[in-house]
Amino acid sequence: MQQAAPQAFDRVLSSMCTDPHPAARAAAERFLATNPGDPATYAEVADLEARAVAALGAITGLATASGAGEGAEEPPHGYVTGGGTEANLQAVRAARDRRNVDGANLVVPESAHFSFTKAADVLGVELRTVSTDADHRADTDAVAAAVDDRTALVVGVAGSTEYGRVDPIPEIADIAHDAGAYCHVDAAWGGFLLPFTDHAWGFADAPIDSLTIDPHKCGRAVIPAGGLLFRDAAGMDVLAVDTPYLESRSQASLAGTRSGAGVASTVAAIDALWPDGYRDEYERADGVARWLAGELRDRGQRVADVELPTVVADLGGGVVESLRERGWRLSRTGCGLARVVVMPHVTRKILRAFLGDLDEVR
Amino acid sequence: MQQAAPQAFDRVLSSMCTDPHPAARAAAERFLATNPGDPATYAEVADLEARAVAALGAITGLATASGAGEGAEEPPHGYVTGGGTEANLQAVRAARDRRNVDGANLVVPESAHFSFTKAADVLGVELRTVSTDADHRADTDAVAAAVDDRTALVVGVAGSTEYGRVDPIPEIADIAHDAGAYCHVDAAWGGFLLPFTDHAWGFADAPIDSLTIDPHKCGRAVIPAGGLLFRDAAGMDVLAVDTPYLESRSQASLAGTRSGAGVASTVAAIDALWPDGYRDEYERADGVARWLAGELRDRGQRVADVELPTVVADLGGGVVESLRERGWRLSRTGCGLARVVVMPHVTRKILRAFLGDLDEVR
Repeated sequence: MQQAAPQAFDRVLSSMCTDPHPAARAAAERFLATNPGDPATYAEVADLEARAVAALGAITGLATASGAGEGAEEPPHGYVTGGGTEANLQAVRAARDRRNVDGANLVVPESAHFSFTKAADVLGVELRTVSTDADHRADTDAVAAAVDDRTALVVGVAGSTEYGRVDPIPEIADIAHDAGAYCHVDAAWGGFLLPFTDHAWGFADAPIDSLTIDPHKCGRAVIPAGGLLFRDAAGMDVLAVDTPYLESRSQASLAGTRSGAGVASTVAAIDALWPDGYRDEYERADGVARWLAGELRDRGQRVADVELPTVVADLGGGVVESLRERGWRLSRTGCGLARVVVMPHVTRKILRAFLGDLDEVR
Repeated sequence: MQQAAPQAFDRVLSSMCTDPHPAARAAAERFLATNPGDPATYAEVADLEARAVAALGAITGLATASGAGEGAEEPPHGYVTGGGTEANLQAVRAARDRRNVDGANLVVPESAHFSFTKAADVLGVELRTVSTDADHRADTDAVAAAVDDRTALVVGVAGSTEYGRVDPIPEIADIAHDAGAYCHVDAAWGGFLLPFTDHAWGFADAPIDSLTIDPHKCGRAVIPAGGLLFRDAAGMDVLAVDTPYLESRSQASLAGTRSGAGVASTVAAIDALWPDGYRDEYERADGVARWLAGELRDRGQRVADVELPTVVADLGGGVVESLRERGWRLSRTGCGLARVVVMPHVTRKILRAFLGDLDEVR
């Protein structure tokens, strides 16, 4: 039978995943047949997971913030999830169970990823979606108006899916805590970019309780590798269920069997790229995104301001469809605007070809 | 830095995962950077997922049972999950939302996997665990006594984690349906073994509503590859949430981004092994398990009867610990009995070495 082949990345403008780093790919291939969910059987990959979590803690300011750095007694609390959805769902679950009120609610800006809709549905928590401001960031007045004494969790987004925006995280954390709720930051996509910006987003910048950061997005690990971190051990503890017939006592992950490839490739990618490689890529992507925005504006298109390297533009009716027919994997925002995510595989050369096709179809 | 290395499989007796089939490994490596959760971007792997679901449907009797085989209009309903936990949780979620009663409950035998404990906790469903009979199968009288008009789902296990037992699935399905509840079969481990036995377990054998079958266990795909199947489209439909900024309309999976490696390796493994390769392996493993049970009995150990190829034996106090110190990755049942899962990598040669060490330590 003919061998199936995956897509090339040279026309993929719609994904928050990318070609993995070569070291990550190699590590994934070595660890394909391992399961960090069973650490007594697969001890080697379980050790790598501890390294991954420590590294994610350092990247997100958790080691600094909690004093859990070198020489400290306590490592960062968290685990390598199957992706941002598992991480976000588990953050909501932990908050629901720590808050422990009837009819708990979850407050998210409308820019939050649809994983929070899933989480609310799965977990039986009321979802309160609040408006964003004119620049697509969470409106803190709207957040404050939505929280009450049944709010379990308030979410801030650090690198939103559509516009790449960073919400005012310190203010959101204060609003959450004033209401007795927890605060979670979704930096699934932004987490490997934000350390090289002036944004206040991580554990060292604000008293947030948990955070999602996905190695399989801008971290250049292989799929599946998400990251969930908690400031306190209690966040993980409340998620744990007993595990008979495993030699470990309990398991906090949502998944049972998990991908050793994701874990090993996370360590390999971070070893290869943190911090200089990620900084170089952030600066490259930022430059490419601003250049693309300029090129589109020069063509008379309306383009949103670039914050993190995502470009949102109104290309007009039918243009996205025409570009998709030419093989461009381009997606649209909820409002129908074209959206280009400048991931590591998205180069000026690729975008020049894209602009050439755009000029022909519009 | 020194390169981390995974465990070898030559002393792993505790896992329901194994070394993937070479064709599965190769397909996984090709599709590492793909995401079936975003089919408009990663169309090639999305096509493979449809093939995987069709194949899983054929293996579990869904195509035959529903008439959805060749030439039929409707393909089997389901998707490739991150593993058995996601599949079981989603089955409970679908039943909860289809049943739609306040205070819904979930009835499982005590032999059910701990993923149902997680699912009940996550989903806010009352977990009713009922006793098993003397041979560790679900006691149908106990199941019947536990169901009521708030039961959303009754679970039968086809290949239990500890003893490899197959519950009386047709009777359980009848009990569930008489109460207005749904019936789910957990064949996460057993699904690729049971087609070669006389057990009544799948969609063609009983009016079950959903089933878990994990390619990354006895299917010899790579981790992560679980499988969830529904008899009716409504099972998947109730799980779907809207997906802005993806060019697809909705998403029924619990995870957002998912592993293309898991999907592609599922198709590759099934293409290579269904049915003859799986039958050969079932017959080999069955023979090895019965031989091991006999060897242990010859040494005066108490050994449970072998049903599917798992061997449970009372090795006496301290013996498992001593064997673990010699590098054997051996696990215990909830009652402390040693448990050997005869996966494809577990050969007579390996088990002779194990028996040699056992003779030395006891």
